[in-house]
Amino acid sequence: MKAAIITIGDEILIGQIVDTNSAFIAKSLDRIGVEIHEMISISDSKQHILDTFSKFQNTVDLVVITGGLGPTKDDITKKTFCDYFEDELIVDEKVLSHVTQLIEGFYNRKITQINKDQALVPSKCTVLHNQVGTAPGMWIIKENTVFVSLPGVPFEMKYLVEQEIIPKVVREYNRPYILHKTILTYGQGESMVAERIEDWENNLPECIKLAYLPSIGSVKLRLSARGTDKLFLENIIQENVASLTKIIGDVIVGFDEGETIETVVGQLLKQQQKTISTAESCTGGKIAAALNSVSGASKYFKGSVVSYATESKIDVLGISEKLIKEHSVVSAEVAKQMAISIKNKMKTDYSIATTGNAGPTKGDSKAEIGTVFIAIATPNGVIVEEFNFGQPREKVIDRTVIKSLEMIREEILKNL
Amino acid sequence: MKAAIITIGDEILIGQIVDTNSAFIAKSLDRIGVEIHEMISISDSKQHILDTFSKFQNTVDLVVITGGLGPTKDDITKKTFCDYFEDELIVDEKVLSHVTQLIEGFYNRKITQINKDQALVPSKCTVLHNQVGTAPGMWIIKENTVFVSLPGVPFEMKYLVEQEIIPKVVREYNRPYILHKTILTYGQGESMVAERIEDWENNLPECIKLAYLPSIGSVKLRLSARGTDKLFLENIIQENVASLTKIIGDVIVGFDEGETIETVVGQLLKQQQKTISTAESCTGGKIAAALNSVSGASKYFKGSVVSYATESKIDVLGISEKLIKEHSVVSAEVAKQMAISIKNKMKTDYSIATTGNAGPTKGDSKAEIGTVFIAIATPNGVIVEEFNFGQPREKVIDRTVIKSLEMIREEILKNL
Repeated sequence: MKAAIITIGDEILIGQIVDTNSAFIAKSLDRIGVEIHEMISISDSKQHILDTFSKFQNTVDLVVITGGLGPTKDDITKKTFCDYFEDELIVDEKVLSHVTQLIEGFYNRKITQINKDQALVPSKCTVLHNQVGTAPGMWIIKENTVFVSLPGVPFEMKYLVEQEIIPKVVREYNRPYILHKTILTYGQGESMVAERIEDWENNLPECIKLAYLPSIGSVKLRLSARGTDKLFLENIIQENVASLTKIIGDVIVGFDEGETIETVVGQLLKQQQKTISTAESCTGGKIAAALNSVSGASKYFKGSVVSYATESKIDVLGISEKLIKEHSVVSAEVAKQMAISIKNKMKTDYSIATTGNAGPTKGDSKAEIGTVFIAIATPNGVIVEEFNFGQPREKVIDRTVIKSLEMIREEILKNL
Repeated sequence: MKAAIITIGDEILIGQIVDTNSAFIAKSLDRIGVEIHEMISISDSKQHILDTFSKFQNTVDLVVITGGLGPTKDDITKKTFCDYFEDELIVDEKVLSHVTQLIEGFYNRKITQINKDQALVPSKCTVLHNQVGTAPGMWIIKENTVFVSLPGVPFEMKYLVEQEIIPKVVREYNRPYILHKTILTYGQGESMVAERIEDWENNLPECIKLAYLPSIGSVKLRLSARGTDKLFLENIIQENVASLTKIIGDVIVGFDEGETIETVVGQLLKQQQKTISTAESCTGGKIAAALNSVSGASKYFKGSVVSYATESKIDVLGISEKLIKEHSVVSAEVAKQMAISIKNKMKTDYSIATTGNAGPTKGDSKAEIGTVFIAIATPNGVIVEEFNFGQPREKVIDRTVIKSLEMIREEILKNL
């Protein structure tokens, strides 16, 4: 089964908003074995919509359309539907009573003609009931292709995908079985990882596809197996993940799709019942924010001092002025003292400290732009490493965050 | 001038990552008067790429392609380029020396064949030099259409768009004159703002288009004027911004496109030569990170204490245990003391403190989920406000960050 996703709206084409709907729809369909052939964003123009419908007619089995269903005058999707399917709009009584109840009962406003028009649907369509909003979903079949239209508001779109479309496709269509497995690696670049696993990759069975998903400081590897025999696919994925782990086990930090270095570190700390704190200069609180973004972080993350100014390193963290003068504020010695100080102040088992020059200008410090020191204090002492993360500023900050989480993970593993 | 944007990569089609590149490219092109005709995401399949190139050949002037330029074998864009343009890959010596220097000089690793292959480019292309990564951009003209290929890594793509493509298009092509003016408002929702400016909006001249860009806690209004007479457009935009300011001046905080509440606050502090610090509980360092994200922040942002655990509020900020027991850790009194303490410790003119329960579970505190106290210390005293930002957790945190920056802005304005 093949699908296409169409997003309608000028706001996407001029880059005002990022289209997140398509990814959600794709993920939901992919999970039930529907292959996404193409995603396309087009303007609120009738001809452009008609051309795009024609393009997918009988070349894919399912077309999912979002956007263009709002109550304002520039939304033309429904009228274009009538043109394309040679149909006319009729009032759907169930939708009308739902809209009336929502507007008058829940929002406590008088219903207007604009609201009532939300209940107009093409007569040939199957209405997908939108419990969480006023614009209904519509499902129309023409020849060999199903066209489904959804509102563009993300939570309404999500509701209709999860409650209506996915169950309906599962009930009414045959699909192959698809199994994905994601392997999260840190610390080596894409080309390095690729070289290490070249032989393994060349020997992958035909039914498994491999994809590299690089981001700053990390590479995700995704294995996708497609077929009809679920048990066979599960076994073959498992075997290949095992043989992969033998080769690059040193850089693998997790196997779950939603996993990140911060959730992995959080998991380890929770398991070990250990706590952590951070003293951040150049990262300005971003390591704290990463640790804090994990739900349940209060179990292990005690807090942080962001000592952006040199004087706050002296006043709040108690770093000696002499030490800073002697070694400069961006130095291994200052990073070490910051890590020790915050660990003691917050009474934690571990701590991370950063000091560096993220650029773009040299500022007060003598250090080269891009130079960063990361110190990790553990129950057994302090380690410190120097890096140069180049430019731009955002990259220096992001790489420092990732690298420090990688370092803390390694230190925790040493103490298991 | 019309353009299309193509994103290549299976990871987008299965919904594993959201395509943010297309929006960035669209925004950059729209700003210089290039109209985006379509955005499309396709798989790493040679035939699909070729078909899509053909579709846009001579129907648009510019095709921008991202993705598929990495060093690994699932990347086939370059080979497909050679097929489509009847060309062959040659080594670009400048790229090779850049890649070699980056890998051997900067990352201190031995260069591999996979790295070297990054320097292979179609012989007919103009190389767009990628200073911040190893994959070069490529610019090839076929008949009436320019095809530009960029790496998919966002900061590399951004570098090439800003430093190479936009300047080249501006130099070499004629476009209409487009003038944008962005008005940043805080504190009122989209429908409220829309209602207040309805008459003004209805009276806008034909050459001006208005767009609403809502985000959490803020609405940006964007006026776009298109035409040939630059001076006329400048005047008419200025007139309409002036009349808009008369109506909603109370919620307008800035007029620059890149402006955010954190840059506005930073600007004010810089002008006044005042300093700021933060003491954060439920926001976990996110206010600090927002203040720190502005280049030059070291002039006014001294630092922050993230006191996530109750004991760190006592140990590091010196909040009295008695006060916490008496009022609970999520209370106006604790927020106030946090603001006073950090202001004194960091020796700043202003400070922000937050304490709240971001959810999803109740945790240690008695406070309702979503309850947040924000305290602002100024040279004249401390104010504190209570909010309930509902759920989910991320929304509570983000709204607290925005609201606290709004509050500090107001306090600074009072002291001008």
